[in-house]
Amino acid sequence: MTGVFDHPWLSGLFADDEMAALWSAEAQLSHMIAFEAAWSRHGHLAGLWSEAEGASAATAIEAVSLAPEELRDGTALDGVCVPALVRLLKERTGANAVHKGATSQDVIDTATALSLANCIDLIDQRLARLASELEALELKFGATPLMGRTRMQAAMPITVSDRVQTWRLPLLTHRDRLAQLRPRVVLVQIGGAAGDHAALGAGADAVCEAVASELGLSPTTKSWHAMRDGMAEAASLMSLITGTLGKMGQDICLMAQQGIDEITLAGGGGSSAMPHKQNPVLAELLVTLARYNAVQLSGLHQAMVHEQERSGAAWALEWMLLPQMVQATGRALVVASNVTAQITWMGTPDPLS
Amino acid sequence: MTGVFDHPWLSGLFADDEMAALWSAEAQLSHMIAFEAAWSRHGHLAGLWSEAEGASAATAIEAVSLAPEELRDGTALDGVCVPALVRLLKERTGANAVHKGATSQDVIDTATALSLANCIDLIDQRLARLASELEALELKFGATPLMGRTRMQAAMPITVSDRVQTWRLPLLTHRDRLAQLRPRVVLVQIGGAAGDHAALGAGADAVCEAVASELGLSPTTKSWHAMRDGMAEAASLMSLITGTLGKMGQDICLMAQQGIDEITLAGGGGSSAMPHKQNPVLAELLVTLARYNAVQLSGLHQAMVHEQERSGAAWALEWMLLPQMVQATGRALVVASNVTAQITWMGTPDPLS
Amino acid sequence: MTGVFDHPWLSGLFADDEMAALWSAEAQLSHMIAFEAAWSRHGHLAGLWSEAEGASAATAIEAVSLAPEELRDGTALDGVCVPALVRLLKERTGANAVHKGATSQDVIDTATALSLANCIDLIDQRLARLASELEALELKFGATPLMGRTRMQAAMPITVSDRVQTWRLPLLTHRDRLAQLRPRVVLVQIGGAAGDHAALGAGADAVCEAVASELGLSPTTKSWHAMRDGMAEAASLMSLITGTLGKMGQDICLMAQQGIDEITLAGGGGSSAMPHKQNPVLAELLVTLARYNAVQLSGLHQAMVHEQERSGAAWALEWMLLPQMVQATGRALVVASNVTAQITWMGTPDPLS
Amino acid sequence: MTGVFDHPWLSGLFADDEMAALWSAEAQLSHMIAFEAAWSRHGHLAGLWSEAEGASAATAIEAVSLAPEELRDGTALDGVCVPALVRLLKERTGANAVHKGATSQDVIDTATALSLANCIDLIDQRLARLASELEALELKFGATPLMGRTRMQAAMPITVSDRVQTWRLPLLTHRDRLAQLRPRVVLVQIGGAAGDHAALGAGADAVCEAVASELGLSPTTKSWHAMRDGMAEAASLMSLITGTLGKMGQDICLMAQQGIDEITLAGGGGSSAMPHKQNPVLAELLVTLARYNAVQLSGLHQAMVHEQERSGAAWALEWMLLPQMVQATGRALVVASNVTAQITWMGTPDPLS
Repeated sequence: MTGVFDHPWLSGLFADDEMAALWSAEAQLSHMIAFEAAWSRHGHLAGLWSEAEGASAATAIEAVSLAPEELRDGTALDGVCVPALVRLLKERTGANAVHKGATSQDVIDTATALSLANCIDLIDQRLARLASELEALELKFGATPLMGRTRMQAAMPITVSDRVQTWRLPLLTHRDRLAQLRPRVVLVQIGGAAGDHAALGAGADAVCEAVASELGLSPTTKSWHAMRDGMAEAASLMSLITGTLGKMGQDICLMAQQGIDEITLAGGGGSSAMPHKQNPVLAELLVTLARYNAVQLSGLHQAMVHEQERSGAAWALEWMLLPQMVQATGRALVVASNVTAQITWMGTPDPLS
Repeated sequence: MTGVFDHPWLSGLFADDEMAALWSAEAQLSHMIAFEAAWSRHGHLAGLWSEAEGASAATAIEAVSLAPEELRDGTALDGVCVPALVRLLKERTGANAVHKGATSQDVIDTATALSLANCIDLIDQRLARLASELEALELKFGATPLMGRTRMQAAMPITVSDRVQTWRLPLLTHRDRLAQLRPRVVLVQIGGAAGDHAALGAGADAVCEAVASELGLSPTTKSWHAMRDGMAEAASLMSLITGTLGKMGQDICLMAQQGIDEITLAGGGGSSAMPHKQNPVLAELLVTLARYNAVQLSGLHQAMVHEQERSGAAWALEWMLLPQMVQATGRALVVASNVTAQITWMGTPDPLS
Repeated sequence: MTGVFDHPWLSGLFADDEMAALWSAEAQLSHMIAFEAAWSRHGHLAGLWSEAEGASAATAIEAVSLAPEELRDGTALDGVCVPALVRLLKERTGANAVHKGATSQDVIDTATALSLANCIDLIDQRLARLASELEALELKFGATPLMGRTRMQAAMPITVSDRVQTWRLPLLTHRDRLAQLRPRVVLVQIGGAAGDHAALGAGADAVCEAVASELGLSPTTKSWHAMRDGMAEAASLMSLITGTLGKMGQDICLMAQQGIDEITLAGGGGSSAMPHKQNPVLAELLVTLARYNAVQLSGLHQAMVHEQERSGAAWALEWMLLPQMVQATGRALVVASNVTAQITWMGTPDPLS
Repeated sequence: MTGVFDHPWLSGLFADDEMAALWSAEAQLSHMIAFEAAWSRHGHLAGLWSEAEGASAATAIEAVSLAPEELRDGTALDGVCVPALVRLLKERTGANAVHKGATSQDVIDTATALSLANCIDLIDQRLARLASELEALELKFGATPLMGRTRMQAAMPITVSDRVQTWRLPLLTHRDRLAQLRPRVVLVQIGGAAGDHAALGAGADAVCEAVASELGLSPTTKSWHAMRDGMAEAASLMSLITGTLGKMGQDICLMAQQGIDEITLAGGGGSSAMPHKQNPVLAELLVTLARYNAVQLSGLHQAMVHEQERSGAAWALEWMLLPQMVQATGRALVVASNVTAQITWMGTPDPLS
């Protein structure tokens, strides 16, 4: 248990339970099962099986109870959890109208798209909330004079509002970006073995539309197995958001310095050696999360070099990085709201002195 | 001269002269002078000087001849070229209605926005061109059978069209992204010393609109000195584009292997030791440029942690990275077109054997 | 549970249990308790308490039973787990001769150094083992002709030995690097509140030596709270190792292509859509892990910009990255050994044809 | 001309002329010519030509005058400059005892190793100089009280010496690292077409030793065409050095804040808007260069995934990154010395107030 988001004690600092739930193994498993049920239910549109057989398989699949750990050995063997999942679904349902015509990547990428859809909603709500919290902050302290600082040097007096706007305005732009991103990633993944719908024949579009619609995703005419620009763009947006919040965190740390004293925070972290200290722990954490995402982002873009119809190497790199990035983003948004709530004063005591 | 884009011989491989021209020192200098002229011309709207005085200064500024090297010593001293530029403009024009109320970052960021505007146009044209070149390729070879390959292993036969679409379709999405990005970065930068328009008083909006309009940029109500999400998003899009092209390059390298023989390229690089070899140099270069941009991107996102009203440290990091990223992107688009033109055959000789 | 190293099913692919144990929360907690016990035992050398009082506290501390989760709330509050740990140790032992004169970073960094010491041993053993496994491979197939390939093109015939040496020789150099790294990171961390041993007075060196010696670490004269070159160097070496193994994995993937057929692997991953396929899953995983570490490494180097006597922001970034990098390294070494064991044939069937 | 190290005015801030000279096109060309001359001179040891023929070719090669630009078109064609170089050398000398048995990568990597050798010397001198400059600073101000600051908060008073040691001590460790790195990278590269010395037969070792010795490099028994751990390690060390200096720069920026006032710097950058400001431009630059190298480093490690006997894609990525990293490192060392010389006072006016 070394990942900070799931760690017995570091999770106290890093975890965002609501976001974690969207990307948990349980959520992924339930998305994968939802895909398989929808597939069984609509496969008849491509003649994979009869409507009745599919419907009965779908119902049975939805009733299957599976522990995430049951997929571990299969993943070790196959490099991907889906062959084991399909074996277990077939065993436990006795159904045959299962998975045929689909491929592992269809299942896993669709599950990711479902998590992304929820994640976009959650982030959008939090962006909106944080923006109004910051607006409230401006209402309270916005007119107070603040020393404007450029290149780490006192420049000219501005107001608190000028500073807080640099934290708030990009949040609104991020909401626009989220809305523009959504149709590019909230997509069903259906391609089959080599990504070309070969197993679906003339019924391909009908199946894609029905499965997508059941899952609340958009259909695609071409599978995106090997076109990963949507994933990399989603990661970019996560890092844009944490970058904005990291700037806010950095500013707060600088404002909280003794001798500068431009912000007062209620709460703050204690020290094991100096009980008198109040550390701006959450503001620092915003900087950490921004730098973390800026680092991870590089890997999602490296993963775009995705050879042929499916790159095992590049795809697995996405698994290692994307869920961490969304968790860092979710946590940063919560932390930014919490820090905002801690602020009891902003301004430069005497900016013209 | 160690930068590959400007290097005496490596430029043969890496340089894109058309893109380089948009970001050259000469272009930047001319953008900065254009800003200063527009500033002089419209400063009267904020009462900085009389309309006549401003108009005369503007005309004089536009006539000044300056060598880029003349800004070197000043940059060494001030960390930014604008103080030297302003001194020289004043000296050579004798005008006083110069720069007052603006700040270095206004000048440099506006120059960058002007280069970005041109760059977005150029990239959009090239995306469109490459997309139609690839469409033409599909018309020629699209129906030919090709072995679909997943996880580096032969999977099921597909067609050339299936593969080429994974190169082409994201280009269309990138054009949408460019269109969405444009209003977020093709913006005038006007903030003054501490970013708050303090020196402009009630005339701030009028000046911003007039200067922006003269330069062909959009005005902003708030300066983006310390909100760098636009820059980081632009960098993200550059890397998304090179990522798509890197995937194309990787595929071509793999198809060109002896024993695979799924593509024939006219031309190709020679070897000093093996005159018989035809190396897929341009396809490899696409991979290099994709990985390069994926690396640089991390830095643009680190630079979002931009302290207070202006971070010298974070801003200078942008200077080191962004022009290189756009050059890599420009070059990758040219190279992708060139590689496409080299293709004289695609397909798997006998995919079912 | 989104981290791949601890994930219910992805751990089947990514986890290295032996390495995970060295970095687990339980191991970290036991290292921290060992530090606190040693501190209590030797604090009398700096006059912090009497020898008897310290000895009795140490014994009591060693007997305390603590669940990692008990530190969660405190970490959430203080941004670091040590204040909570110290509170709990004092509560459960009733002792007072606890922690005084030390600081959170002393405890946590020392725990990391202890994990690194074990980790260096484990990696060194595995490097040695893998090197001899590859040597054995050379004995078996080394003389077999193999087509040398440069720039993805057939160049001139070489032997299997020439290729395998590019996988094996760097392992020996990595062992040299590990030996050189060891004295730079297997160091006790003792600095106290502001890193200057102020609370220890003239007894500082004596305490440092005694605590270090009890823990099997080297003492230091200056605390490394804010000098993070050792951590960044350790991360660099992790990435050098996975880089070498990634090259091996990439080569194997390329050799395993149908049409190239230069390697035969027993085992290999299955496909949910194509039961006939044998995917070189482990070889791909080596590429993934190499690219992962190359990405993370950037963050450890960003974390060197560590402000003043302790940067909460930079330090927490290390927590997010370093344990993941060592796990990726541990896993890559196991995977490389496993792939080596799977190889039943190497060579180019007819390199001169 | 967009690269900051060669830019008409940005070079004022970023260029290190001494380091640039070691990596210039002219220096690389002269190293390549030195390799070719040594190759001609000693090729007779492998029976490539007669001793007299080789000696005469070597002398002629050494007398050839070539402009770097003459290699541009060939590089565009072949992806590497060596085929053009060899053609030109043959044309201009009329000699035949040229290059045979060597390959492009032998020439270019050896030229890089020669630059690295000089670069290691230069960096070592600068590390030594900076360490003694910082030691002198400690002599001057070391005993002055300074507020120790942890997590951006005042902690406990320390001394200036405590702070400065965190800048100075790692420099000494970096010197040890340089000494350990040297034998791993100051190596001749000789492998021939496929890296196996095939063209040299029994004379391979004799040629390698003679060429290496003439060039002042160490010989190797196995070419390192595809083993890039040395390059990636060199890059890691560059980033470790700039990381240490970035920490120093960050500290100075923080100390120079009004309200903190813990350092006085003579000089400092001017502002176009605020003539009264003294910006800590060089200290900020140290942060920029540290973050720059931390970013680039990732790419050198990605380039370790070097397929088969030579990866054009990975190798070209090194060309894009390594010379920039060494220039950033060289510049950072000069800047750190310059900042140190600017310091006229350090200490916290009244740390206990």
